[in-house]
Amino acid sequence: MLIKGRKCTRELHRGIVHASWLSMSNTSSLWPRFQKYFVRLPKLGFAIDISRMTFEDDLFDAMAPSIEKAFADMKALEAGAISNPDEGRMVGHYWLRNSSLAPADLRAEIDDTLEATLKFAEDVHGGVIKAANGQKFTRVLVVGIGGSALGPQLVAQSITPANPPLQISFFDNTDPDGMDRVVAQIGAEIATTVTLVISKSGGTKETRNGMLEAAAAYQAQGVDFTKHAVAVTGVGSELDKYAIAQGWLARFPMWDWVGGRTSVMSAVGTIAAALQGVDVRGFLAGAAAMDAETRTRSARQNPAMLLALMWFSAGKGKGAKDMVVLPYKDRLVLFSKYLQQLVMESLGKEHDLDGKVVNQGIAVYGNKGSTDQHAYVQQLRDGVNNFFATFIEVRKDRDTAGFEVEPGFTSGDYLQGFLRGTRKALADKGRESVTLSIDEVSAYSLGVLVGLFERTVSFYATLVNVNAYHQPGVEAGKKAATDFLKQMGQVLASLPASGSGVTADALAGQIGIDPEDAWHMLSHLSANGRVKIATLGETPSADQFLRV
Amino acid sequence: MLIKGRKCTRELHRGIVHASWLSMSNTSSLWPRFQKYFVRLPKLGFAIDISRMTFEDDLFDAMAPSIEKAFADMKALEAGAISNPDEGRMVGHYWLRNSSLAPADLRAEIDDTLEATLKFAEDVHGGVIKAANGQKFTRVLVVGIGGSALGPQLVAQSITPANPPLQISFFDNTDPDGMDRVVAQIGAEIATTVTLVISKSGGTKETRNGMLEAAAAYQAQGVDFTKHAVAVTGVGSELDKYAIAQGWLARFPMWDWVGGRTSVMSAVGTIAAALQGVDVRGFLAGAAAMDAETRTRSARQNPAMLLALMWFSAGKGKGAKDMVVLPYKDRLVLFSKYLQQLVMESLGKEHDLDGKVVNQGIAVYGNKGSTDQHAYVQQLRDGVNNFFATFIEVRKDRDTAGFEVEPGFTSGDYLQGFLRGTRKALADKGRESVTLSIDEVSAYSLGVLVGLFERTVSFYATLVNVNAYHQPGVEAGKKAATDFLKQMGQVLASLPASGSGVTADALAGQIGIDPEDAWHMLSHLSANGRVKIATLGETPSADQFLRV
Repeated sequence: MLIKGRKCTRELHRGIVHASWLSMSNTSSLWPRFQKYFVRLPKLGFAIDISRMTFEDDLFDAMAPSIEKAFADMKALEAGAISNPDEGRMVGHYWLRNSSLAPADLRAEIDDTLEATLKFAEDVHGGVIKAANGQKFTRVLVVGIGGSALGPQLVAQSITPANPPLQISFFDNTDPDGMDRVVAQIGAEIATTVTLVISKSGGTKETRNGMLEAAAAYQAQGVDFTKHAVAVTGVGSELDKYAIAQGWLARFPMWDWVGGRTSVMSAVGTIAAALQGVDVRGFLAGAAAMDAETRTRSARQNPAMLLALMWFSAGKGKGAKDMVVLPYKDRLVLFSKYLQQLVMESLGKEHDLDGKVVNQGIAVYGNKGSTDQHAYVQQLRDGVNNFFATFIEVRKDRDTAGFEVEPGFTSGDYLQGFLRGTRKALADKGRESVTLSIDEVSAYSLGVLVGLFERTVSFYATLVNVNAYHQPGVEAGKKAATDFLKQMGQVLASLPASGSGVTADALAGQIGIDPEDAWHMLSHLSANGRVKIATLGETPSADQFLRV
Repeated sequence: MLIKGRKCTRELHRGIVHASWLSMSNTSSLWPRFQKYFVRLPKLGFAIDISRMTFEDDLFDAMAPSIEKAFADMKALEAGAISNPDEGRMVGHYWLRNSSLAPADLRAEIDDTLEATLKFAEDVHGGVIKAANGQKFTRVLVVGIGGSALGPQLVAQSITPANPPLQISFFDNTDPDGMDRVVAQIGAEIATTVTLVISKSGGTKETRNGMLEAAAAYQAQGVDFTKHAVAVTGVGSELDKYAIAQGWLARFPMWDWVGGRTSVMSAVGTIAAALQGVDVRGFLAGAAAMDAETRTRSARQNPAMLLALMWFSAGKGKGAKDMVVLPYKDRLVLFSKYLQQLVMESLGKEHDLDGKVVNQGIAVYGNKGSTDQHAYVQQLRDGVNNFFATFIEVRKDRDTAGFEVEPGFTSGDYLQGFLRGTRKALADKGRESVTLSIDEVSAYSLGVLVGLFERTVSFYATLVNVNAYHQPGVEAGKKAATDFLKQMGQVLASLPASGSGVTADALAGQIGIDPEDAWHMLSHLSANGRVKIATLGETPSADQFLRV
């Protein structure tokens, strides 16, 4: 890691001393600065403008060693290095859109899987693959969580037709009421619904629960779930074995070298996308095109490296500033949430690659403009200056013929006016922003954006020396949850069936667990008719519980 | 403002010195601390637990003068004081659920408006009010932005039936493509769609544009928009006059003493809610019940004051920590976004009430658990410690009969297990959290939560001495947008129709505007076929443009 030493830190700070130009922007044009820090890729329909970030030009020199290392790390990663050392895994999501880069033994599998997912969708659309009742499928239900839901959700929101060939629904949680609501909305159409159960490990509890809830919903209407169920999971996983044993409609592989948060271009994303009529090959081509550009361009002309440097400069390499994502386009509202997962789960790490405690990360939030101007932009301009904004501009207004809402101006002119106006209003108050522009929202351009941010995350991870491809912090919560459930079983088993009831303290003491946990379990169970509150006391320790 | 002096600051810091208990929580029970800082209101089905925040007990003493002032300010506010001094307005959203508190001359109007909105919905449901084609209305389209959309969206997501009497759609932006998509999804059903146009000022451009786009969509299918249009706006506003002139189906009033972000219990929220079959009176009753409790309880037993103190303690009264909102319930996913608007637009202020520059605010983000455990909880536990979490627990799992996903456990047990496990995993790493528990998600309990956070914002505003009821920072962006559009008109008018084209520099010099703005306008217009790019240069200043 090259930027750790004292000298480098000093060098670096030269580069990110905050310039005075922002406060001048009320009066003087930033046209020269804009052109200096504006990179456009017309073939990709993409441009990036970092002129409203407060770095100074020597940032590039100060960071040169780190930049070189980031390029070298990426080269090694794309060549199949074990870039996820904690899990001993390769990192191959870049291969999904260009299999010729992948290790030779993986190429055929990547290509074949893509073909198979597209063929599956084609067969569903053509009625070759049908519902158990012999009718065509009309809906798709995705059961997954994290990357296994958010990728398909992003695609569904942003690049599907308004009325796609199959409508999509999601079970993306283990909330019984949430699933009931989705089932009620699907209604009798469940008889023509295909369900994708997506879990890389095949052991994610929320998804296992969702699968069982889905199966129950089919059964309740007398439909054979197995004839409607498709698994997307690692070969040989628990889910894979289950799908084989039950004779599911189809199975597609996931690989350990693709992380959940970067899986949207694997079968995780492509099946649902293809079922909804998305141009999947265009989506992959957009990402491949951005990959190609950001693989070879020098730092100053490289959108992904520019973005990584801006993240570094804004947050002093420590995530000191939140990233607020503001796409001015309804279709892209979930892109903010997609980046929240991609960036925070990749970069939010306790240790660096040398084992030092660093507590890295960048907090990400946002929805869409101009809507958010009527929500929290008040704080962005006037309040705590703890963020930098990322505007996403879409130049094309609409596919239909527009009209003027007042002489000379369309709704889309207003949308652009609000973006430019807000960017200026923020800059006038010393609030930093990056602006990305795309020509239109399409499968291709969404691929361009996904490719850009994936590579930015990879680059930034080198700049701050963390492993961007694991998520060790998630395990602690899962383990605590498992303990909690095990103890809940003990609590239920130890409850008296009669008498005046027992307190959480007494029960916890008997079992040897924390009385606070016992009390919460009992309160939850009583709200669901599985435990009776004999006495509601003045304080939790005075509450008394009985078996129902 | 009582906490400003040196002594007070020192006193205060005593209260928020970070305690060592969090790191001990691996081994010792926090049951006594939990009970000490747990307040439950069983009649409201509500409880708050602040035991996992790292304040110490003398916080209450240190803050006593500010607490007293906050109670006094609230009393004055509820009695009709001009609590929004910059705009010279009363702040009356608390009256919407208890009109007897309102100034005498407003009571009848509050009551009558509520009755009128409920009657309107009843008449729509009963077919007394019908579509122009004589059929019953089947859908509602809400045209609004900011509070005029987010309140109705929250209600639609959280407390409507799965299949409501009228399905709802939104135009909440000025994105032409976004509106086209909604129109395509409504399809022919526009003939039985009632449209609510909601704008307090009656002059919001996004909403004006949305109204015109909606009218065009009706017209395209030969339906008379005016027979389907309802206005919710200030009496005498531009929109109000327009609705009268056009003879719209109905009009309902908004008042200047209700802010957009607190308008969900005015006609802004109640019409859409009632149309969708929501128990509107229950919703209001929940808020009124929380109002009553938090109006009279002492600080240590007052959920809204406890929460305000936690915000203050966590962020050192300066918004130093982000608030991450994690409701473990699908229906509440928008509550995080609702709070983002409520908190950030209310508290994100440049000046305090004495005119001092303070740059206040609290950044708020979040979606839902356990879903977000598979997104950014990795960073929350391991990464930058720049936040405090707010868990929202819902004790009741579902309305339908559940089943066990494995022996002894339901999907809902898992949901609770994940919440408790994540809360523990965060606390083990010194990450703070508040936990709110509600018995179930209902109109009443949503009212309880809205009431809680509205009062918390009011209290916190006193603690940091800001006006929570205006949004002066939003104007600058609007003005810059207006300038941008005006200049766009000049650019279009000045473009040559033939020859080799003109550069942005030349055109801008001619008109006297910033060449960067001119270039962005031209790029936008060319993407929409309204300007022609004669030459795409190496840099933006080399691009040449022509009239189409």
